[in-house]
Amino acid sequence: MVVHVNLGPRSYAIVVESGALATVGSRLRALGVGARAALVSDAAILALYGKTVVASLEGAGLAVTTVEVPEGEAAKRLDVAARCWDALLDAGLDRGSTVLALGGGAVGDVAGFVAATYMRGVNFVQLPTTVLAQVDASIGGKTAIDHPKAKNLIGAFHQPRLVLCDPATARSLPQREFRSGLAEIVKHGIVLDAAYFAEVERDAPALLARDLGVLERIIGGSCRLKAAVVERDEQEAELRAVLNYGHTIGHALEAATGYARFAHGEAVALGIAAEARLARRLGLASDETVARQERLLAAVGLPIRDASLDAAAVLDAIRRDKKARDGRVPFVLAPAIGTFRLHYDVTAEDIRSVLDELRGSPG
Amino acid sequence: MVVHVNLGPRSYAIVVESGALATVGSRLRALGVGARAALVSDAAILALYGKTVVASLEGAGLAVTTVEVPEGEAAKRLDVAARCWDALLDAGLDRGSTVLALGGGAVGDVAGFVAATYMRGVNFVQLPTTVLAQVDASIGGKTAIDHPKAKNLIGAFHQPRLVLCDPATARSLPQREFRSGLAEIVKHGIVLDAAYFAEVERDAPALLARDLGVLERIIGGSCRLKAAVVERDEQEAELRAVLNYGHTIGHALEAATGYARFAHGEAVALGIAAEARLARRLGLASDETVARQERLLAAVGLPIRDASLDAAAVLDAIRRDKKARDGRVPFVLAPAIGTFRLHYDVTAEDIRSVLDELRGSPG
Repeated sequence: MVVHVNLGPRSYAIVVESGALATVGSRLRALGVGARAALVSDAAILALYGKTVVASLEGAGLAVTTVEVPEGEAAKRLDVAARCWDALLDAGLDRGSTVLALGGGAVGDVAGFVAATYMRGVNFVQLPTTVLAQVDASIGGKTAIDHPKAKNLIGAFHQPRLVLCDPATARSLPQREFRSGLAEIVKHGIVLDAAYFAEVERDAPALLARDLGVLERIIGGSCRLKAAVVERDEQEAELRAVLNYGHTIGHALEAATGYARFAHGEAVALGIAAEARLARRLGLASDETVARQERLLAAVGLPIRDASLDAAAVLDAIRRDKKARDGRVPFVLAPAIGTFRLHYDVTAEDIRSVLDELRGSPG
Repeated sequence: MVVHVNLGPRSYAIVVESGALATVGSRLRALGVGARAALVSDAAILALYGKTVVASLEGAGLAVTTVEVPEGEAAKRLDVAARCWDALLDAGLDRGSTVLALGGGAVGDVAGFVAATYMRGVNFVQLPTTVLAQVDASIGGKTAIDHPKAKNLIGAFHQPRLVLCDPATARSLPQREFRSGLAEIVKHGIVLDAAYFAEVERDAPALLARDLGVLERIIGGSCRLKAAVVERDEQEAELRAVLNYGHTIGHALEAATGYARFAHGEAVALGIAAEARLARRLGLASDETVARQERLLAAVGLPIRDASLDAAAVLDAIRRDKKARDGRVPFVLAPAIGTFRLHYDVTAEDIRSVLDELRGSPG
């Protein structure tokens, strides 16, 4: 499946297909980029897919430098970005050159930031190897590194020239990481497309079994939904905030627990459960709308209750949210499956109340 | 004079008028930005204009944090940018907040880079206080910091929301810095507008005497010319390269002399003299076209000859030019005053030859 992201001069294709990684060289050549490229990845991912990607690039006549970064969030540090800039300069990359990110969301974030800022922006290609990165992080041009006091504080919008998703890579993910990625898929269904949500409900068992055909269809469907949002609001002025469904509380949960207790998708699942309940509390959503979201999250193995939730710490983290403007944080709420509404008047009491609900037993 | 830069959703106004700095608060409020702002500047400039700007901002109800950076190129370091990010976060700046750069090109470059990358981009306002920054650096959204091995290597395109040029600030500049800024004015005339070039020829004595009316008209005229180029090529894909006239050799001269010997405008003046001669050598320009450029540069007190030019060092620096693509550097040449042409086939021998000419006595 190929999804086109139409952004005028910054348009690009998202290719979702088994074996896509081996086609990167010829596809990149077809875009008319310069002869030099840097492949940014971590050791574990390079061991799995490095050879395939480098062979494809070199086979297309590109000179490739490999830049190894730490695994996970540790890659998103200013000193790592600085080492990448050094490596690009040493390898003679120029304004026509290309930076490729091979790996999960963290690699894409730091490599994208480096591509956005090296010589004021060079070509960037995303080769996401996790479900989370394939359906979310790799699309839309958000790049960032962390500040010691705030995640993703330093970054830029810089659209990729190409995104290649090989759904086969999802089959080698550890179980917890695979399931974490499904939270974004569920999120896309809830706020953007009721038919897609129903498709995920129906295919949940095959998805969990990592059936390749189902993976390709569901991942491709999520890419299509995210691309449509990005097309209509490239720089997250308003509409794009819809993608933050479950994330305002989810991010706060992660921050409040030092990014150590929950995988991102687990925090988002709890955030969705909480924000579903917020919509009900505010009289926007029915019991069944809440229950359907929680049932699907549970069906794909994601948490919807947590006895240790600390409402005070979560509220404190929300107040420091990057999306706050002069102190107010907008919430995305889902009045029904497939719809959303921005809500600016959620009170601390509302949030405390739904977090209290999540500390109880399911049901 | 108000010049409008039309870039769709990124459009902005350049206001060139005596006393403009004292109007920043009300103009910023009219743009509907958030309540917090950070003023980035150096100690010397803050002593001259800090009070005026802060009073105007506070008078309009904005909460202002002042962030002091080193003077000149020393501001364009990664650790300085990092300190700015820290200060913005500590002051609670959010996505709706504004970063203002008060000073010369270096302050604008680093503050612009910080504004481009803090929370993936916040509002940015340029308050340029040097002629160089007023007619060139503050317009067009180029921001950057330096890499230890290459100037301006790390940066982003990030358009300001507003540019306020107070021509009165030019009157307090040291003589050498004032004249350095005139090189960009002469450049704009040569490649973009023969009538403007003739106006600068005619007004050169009044310009050198820093007549306020003439300063406002000539600076405003240069802003208009640069804005028209930026409108047609926001990201320096091709046309915007015209603004590099005199700069390919000028930058190389600065790099080859460790950025210590020449002020930027002095290097650009020598670069213009060299590139004017390149056009003649390649059969594109007449003797008179070359002579007219050199006469005006000399009339405003800029160098057009230098006995110490090291052709080998300059050639070496050109090969490392950021504008090189797969090894080729494009030259902007002026076949006649008011016209330009991109030329990709300038040889090392051509460059050596014109640099040899510049080592001799004028005439």
